[in-house]
Amino acid sequence: MAKLKVSFAPSVRRLPSYLHIIRQAQRNRDYYISGTVIAQELNLEPIQVRKDLAITGIVGKPKKGYPVDDLIAAIERYLGWNNFHNAALIGAGNLGSALIGYQEFQLHGLRIVAAFDTDPAKIAGKVHGVDIFSMDILEDKLRELAVEIAILTVPSPFAQATTEALLRAGVTAIWNFTNVKLKVSDDIVVQREDLSSGYALLSVMMQTKERAAAK
Amino acid sequence: MAKLKVSFAPSVRRLPSYLHIIRQAQRNRDYYISGTVIAQELNLEPIQVRKDLAITGIVGKPKKGYPVDDLIAAIERYLGWNNFHNAALIGAGNLGSALIGYQEFQLHGLRIVAAFDTDPAKIAGKVHGVDIFSMDILEDKLRELAVEIAILTVPSPFAQATTEALLRAGVTAIWNFTNVKLKVSDDIVVQREDLSSGYALLSVMMQTKERAAAK
Repeated sequence: MAKLKVSFAPSVRRLPSYLHIIRQAQRNRDYYISGTVIAQELNLEPIQVRKDLAITGIVGKPKKGYPVDDLIAAIERYLGWNNFHNAALIGAGNLGSALIGYQEFQLHGLRIVAAFDTDPAKIAGKVHGVDIFSMDILEDKLRELAVEIAILTVPSPFAQATTEALLRAGVTAIWNFTNVKLKVSDDIVVQREDLSSGYALLSVMMQTKERAAAK
Repeated sequence: MAKLKVSFAPSVRRLPSYLHIIRQAQRNRDYYISGTVIAQELNLEPIQVRKDLAITGIVGKPKKGYPVDDLIAAIERYLGWNNFHNAALIGAGNLGSALIGYQEFQLHGLRIVAAFDTDPAKIAGKVHGVDIFSMDILEDKLRELAVEIAILTVPSPFAQATTEALLRAGVTAIWNFTNVKLKVSDDIVVQREDLSSGYALLSVMMQTKERAAAK
């Protein structure tokens, strides 16, 4: 499985929130935005914001900050969000439907061109305008549509077998929402999403607050 | 808004995956588990795993590793997952339904006792066994059920007004799935979940691979 330097991950995770704020500045026709303003919006330290943005290769100007248009371009280039990638949703349940309806992804170069499910009641229907196909034709359809990215929201027991079909069909990147650690070769990119991660953060903040109150 | 030391966040995010692996070792009746084994399972460096686990206050034994039962207890205590918290889902759309159906949360002390929506077709129904109530009775019902945590999956334009109602009803922690930065006082815990974060990580790994292939 392709690896990312672990120390980079938290910075990369924050880039979409930066992009959100910087796009707002662009809509307000601001030419420059300072790291301090971004930091305030997100409750972060200004030094953290500057370090995070540095990974995209951009450097701010003293007193002025970052040129808004250049900063958006640098982040998008770093993330590859200036190019479109064809993606397919595998498993059109509640989570899959929520993801396909998440309009922001279209701004991020993610073009969901097909969905797949095993439920006859769903097949041949649409979810948020995207056609739902039978899992029986998964491999042929993925090849036909030149799908690079699979968004995997099948039940966990089907995760590994489905992954093997995805790889046979030429998929090179899997966004994995199951709780299975997929076995794939080194040239395949996998990002596992764990909804418990965010809940762990919320829990620790609650604990910290309760402990402080008990003092 | 209550703050967490930023440098801790990535470690806390990884704790649920550790817990998942350690619980598996417990089911296999292993008495000890080594940091190296956990690291291999998750494609991390062993030193990273040891550092992450150290925040829960536990230290491994040389050659043996961590006692499995103690390690689970330490992580659960650190996260507060050894106690139940009453939670409510605000907005019973696709994402909300997916979250309420996510069975692992019950292992983590999250007890979803009610859901709320504005859609008359949903009100008085159930989602994964949880009653759906009208938003009109939100404040009374939250007080009656002693809800501490709100899982906020309403459309973004309604996020701030809904939050104000939640706070009036005594909610102290908000798991925010909208893309709105909520205005709350310092004693309220907010964790904002951004689905774009994981996609950003996937994108950077894809870019890194493409650049390496182009060399």
